[in-house]
Amino acid sequence: MIVKKFSEIEKTAITKEGLKGVSIRWLIGPDSGAPNFYLRLFEVEPGGHSPFHSHPWEHEVYILEGKGKLNTGKESIPFEKDYFILVLPGEEHQFENTGATALKFLCIIPPEGK
Amino acid sequence: MIVKKFSEIEKTAITKEGLKGVSIRWLIGPDSGAPNFYLRLFEVEPGGHSPFHSHPWEHEVYILEGKGKLNTGKESIPFEKDYFILVLPGEEHQFENTGATALKFLCIIPPEGK
Repeated sequence: MIVKKFSEIEKTAITKEGLKGVSIRWLIGPDSGAPNFYLRLFEVEPGGHSPFHSHPWEHEVYILEGKGKLNTGKESIPFEKDYFILVLPGEEHQFENTGATALKFLCIIPPEGK
Repeated sequence: MIVKKFSEIEKTAITKEGLKGVSIRWLIGPDSGAPNFYLRLFEVEPGGHSPFHSHPWEHEVYILEGKGKLNTGKESIPFEKDYFILVLPGEEHQFENTGATALKFLCIIPPEGK
């Protein structure tokens, strides 16, 4: 059993090619003992974005703060606080902050996505 | 790909024994095509609670609004907005709203928990 505030978890900047201004908190990860999926909290600075990519597992996302758009290569779909997003396996996607404040969202992945 | 606001999904009251004042929105469920896990948004009225029970899969929870406590049978652990909770397989648990406003939280389960 774990009961914690998200801010108790260390925030780590991600410095990989294709990302800009993205940091992550692993709220529930491989060390937690959770067998089926992991919970991460991402923070994207204004103008920042995740990489444009695809992978063989799903993302399930819930927007906690801010606003942005989901770039699919074919269209850009706007979202804001209290939106949820499903990216199915194999679908190309990129999350981009289009607002003036931090974009914060939860993103759940299966263990194979670690 | 699904991009929607949570309020676009119908809210359904749950009327099972052991629950009080609980409703659910299936944001991402079995019909979505997601292979590994499902995302639900629960709303618990002031004084309401989920059943005290356990099951062979994990819960991963994020508190969106309100405050409450997690009853484990041995202790009651308080939480509020921006807390996350991991309930491991087999751990007894009950979510209870101890505040004056609605308690809203996300709860993720694997397909076997449907």
